[in-house]
Amino acid sequence: MSIRLNETHDAGLKSWVASANVENTDFPIQNLPYGVFRRRHSDEAFRVGVAIGDQILDLTVVRGSGAFAEVEPLARQALEAAASPTVNALMALGQPAWSALRLALSRALRMDAPQAARLNSALVPQTEAEYAVPARIGDYTDFYTSIHHATTIGKQFRPDNPLLPNYKWVPIGYHGRASSIVISGQGFRRPVGQIKAPTADVPVLGPAQRLDYELEMAVYIGCGNALGEPVSIADAESHVFGLGLFNDWSARDIQAWEYQPLGPFLSKSFASTLSPWIVTLEALAPYRQAWTRDRDDPQPLPYLDSPDLREYGAFDVQLEVFLSTQSMREADLPPQRLSRSNLSDAYWSVSQMVTHQTVNGCNLQPGDLLGSGTLSGPTPDAAGSMLELSSGGKQPLTLVSGETRSFLQDGDEVIFRGQAQRDGFVRIGFGEVRGEVLPARGL
Amino acid sequence: MSIRLNETHDAGLKSWVASANVENTDFPIQNLPYGVFRRRHSDEAFRVGVAIGDQILDLTVVRGSGAFAEVEPLARQALEAAASPTVNALMALGQPAWSALRLALSRALRMDAPQAARLNSALVPQTEAEYAVPARIGDYTDFYTSIHHATTIGKQFRPDNPLLPNYKWVPIGYHGRASSIVISGQGFRRPVGQIKAPTADVPVLGPAQRLDYELEMAVYIGCGNALGEPVSIADAESHVFGLGLFNDWSARDIQAWEYQPLGPFLSKSFASTLSPWIVTLEALAPYRQAWTRDRDDPQPLPYLDSPDLREYGAFDVQLEVFLSTQSMREADLPPQRLSRSNLSDAYWSVSQMVTHQTVNGCNLQPGDLLGSGTLSGPTPDAAGSMLELSSGGKQPLTLVSGETRSFLQDGDEVIFRGQAQRDGFVRIGFGEVRGEVLPARGL
Repeated sequence: MSIRLNETHDAGLKSWVASANVENTDFPIQNLPYGVFRRRHSDEAFRVGVAIGDQILDLTVVRGSGAFAEVEPLARQALEAAASPTVNALMALGQPAWSALRLALSRALRMDAPQAARLNSALVPQTEAEYAVPARIGDYTDFYTSIHHATTIGKQFRPDNPLLPNYKWVPIGYHGRASSIVISGQGFRRPVGQIKAPTADVPVLGPAQRLDYELEMAVYIGCGNALGEPVSIADAESHVFGLGLFNDWSARDIQAWEYQPLGPFLSKSFASTLSPWIVTLEALAPYRQAWTRDRDDPQPLPYLDSPDLREYGAFDVQLEVFLSTQSMREADLPPQRLSRSNLSDAYWSVSQMVTHQTVNGCNLQPGDLLGSGTLSGPTPDAAGSMLELSSGGKQPLTLVSGETRSFLQDGDEVIFRGQAQRDGFVRIGFGEVRGEVLPARGL
Repeated sequence: MSIRLNETHDAGLKSWVASANVENTDFPIQNLPYGVFRRRHSDEAFRVGVAIGDQILDLTVVRGSGAFAEVEPLARQALEAAASPTVNALMALGQPAWSALRLALSRALRMDAPQAARLNSALVPQTEAEYAVPARIGDYTDFYTSIHHATTIGKQFRPDNPLLPNYKWVPIGYHGRASSIVISGQGFRRPVGQIKAPTADVPVLGPAQRLDYELEMAVYIGCGNALGEPVSIADAESHVFGLGLFNDWSARDIQAWEYQPLGPFLSKSFASTLSPWIVTLEALAPYRQAWTRDRDDPQPLPYLDSPDLREYGAFDVQLEVFLSTQSMREADLPPQRLSRSNLSDAYWSVSQMVTHQTVNGCNLQPGDLLGSGTLSGPTPDAAGSMLELSSGGKQPLTLVSGETRSFLQDGDEVIFRGQAQRDGFVRIGFGEVRGEVLPARGL
């Protein structure tokens, strides 16, 4: 991997796509995230595009345009792979190819680029697009990297002993359901499941009453590893294609009854929602931070530690959670921000997740997804779930509309946004992930 | 679904493939399981075949032979789908198509079938074949359907309260890793992971010392369901293509340290091994049994209960575990049987697994795999794991070679076999699943 900055990160770059130069766009020319889209209400095939300002650069059209005829062979090969219904083929090519394509895209989209005229017809306005899950996800695993989340949740179950003894040693994770991962904007039915009230003798089947969101980031695996061949911490980030926003919806009442002894199952597998855009690790290079561990805490075992990790293993990505209820929308009230958090507060790094996942020889494949787990920060207003914000439902939130919420109601829409910024660099954004709770299916 | 028997189950049927008529073959003409194979040491493409006696009928060659030109259109469509590198396309067609192809295959393989001459060239001897995982597995989930296993394991952790309160209500399951599922005969490296000895203050990274097998059956999903649309118990079996043998290798020491609070992860994801052949649900029709629940136990919630379930929801499939150590092979000793068990002893049925998995709206896809969980029977000699047979390692087994085993050693090969038989019907078998423990990768 390389943390080095290059010309694609230069804050002075402007694009001939004018909307990419607007202050506070999520998608300046320094970002160039990948997604899969088509024109809304069309029967076009979904294909890979790159967000630039308020437009999408259609890479299948770019390939056909001949505008990249002069770029270096590795970038041309990457463009060939990216002219596809999913990002997987590009992912499989590896970091040098991703970097070559990024450089070629950056140069072609710059102000005064000679390709501008030919590429103009490859632009589709984002307002006219709909999106698909950008990668064919083989396996999805979810981690638990926020010690603040683990501690707050642990307190609700075990006030005297909130954090389990393995937490500071093991990047805890578990397998999740890939088939029910959907794209931002797609609503989902409130799940039905077995629920046993604390005072009840027997469970009943019914709609979840304690439905929650979880503020997470998605880590997309780029190139994989062979079964039996672990990925060292030094190599881990070269296997990561990029990051997205991720809402791992959770039914707390189903979870409480089902999760022992093998972990959460139907409380999670009804839906998880991804943002359309994958921001590459290379785009995030300027916003890296030192990864630290309190001196009083156990230091990571050697397989989870490295000088690079200590120097720049963390990502300063600011995250926000918004809620829009049906009443708020009817009253033309904007979505209300519920909390703010930051990926850099995670106890375990992206590279540690990758290395831990493979230390037993488990093979990763292009498009596999690692969830960060709920990214709660150190303060109560940085909680990444309603379970935390409402203290397990005991302290309902009061909303600007006058409504209260302990958990999500039908018609509630949850929106996450993310961004990275640093002095001397342009701000880049992740776009957003949104999902609406639809009423449960009749029993 | 249909439990009705038809001409394909007739015990009097004989095949023009002579080896299919030998007593105790796993693959008489009444079985006709699907697998994916190619000639060993060749660079042929893997493709779907049907086991018949000691041969494999190559369905891609059958399609090209024109021998099925006269069969009904649904069977021809199914054959088209089956002439493929995986069984997925056939799975997606649904039960009527599977049944039509089975009938056509049965008729074409019968003694004196007019197609015999043309099909002869579609046969490949099993001794010359190697196999691949027969389906492209999207998601793999593992259940915990043996109350005997759950109780024995529970006793090791909680002597006074072995079975958790949810067990008799919820078909407990959790998500597993699909990428590391391999085919019978493929060895795997002993996994490395974090292990904390009970007396140690801190964990260390090292090879698992408590490596175990788990005797399971694999349930292959045929046609799926849409996200948000549960599968009722009445429909559940129409979504099941068939069953195979499955070894869900487990590293008990890694598991003990990592599994709280989110369940097993790296203790499982290093490898799981499938048998080459999928025995269809239709082939198993003669060996169905009533599904019962003790009167003293809670009866299933209505969504998990049905008259059909009570009448024939269980499968009488006899299972055996064998161990072959390196010393045993060097001394020309045959594999030693460690235990015998039966799928019918499971507390939850195949249909209950499918319905429970989808009750929250989770979508299944063709090729998805549901593991039964370790199928231990009611007696100690029916235990489906070494953890149970050796009482958590406290009572090592003595083998015919004079060796002892608490857990698996390098060079140990574990073999499962399965069969179904009933008076008035021919015995059918599942073949076998075998896997050898290879030494851990150097740290």
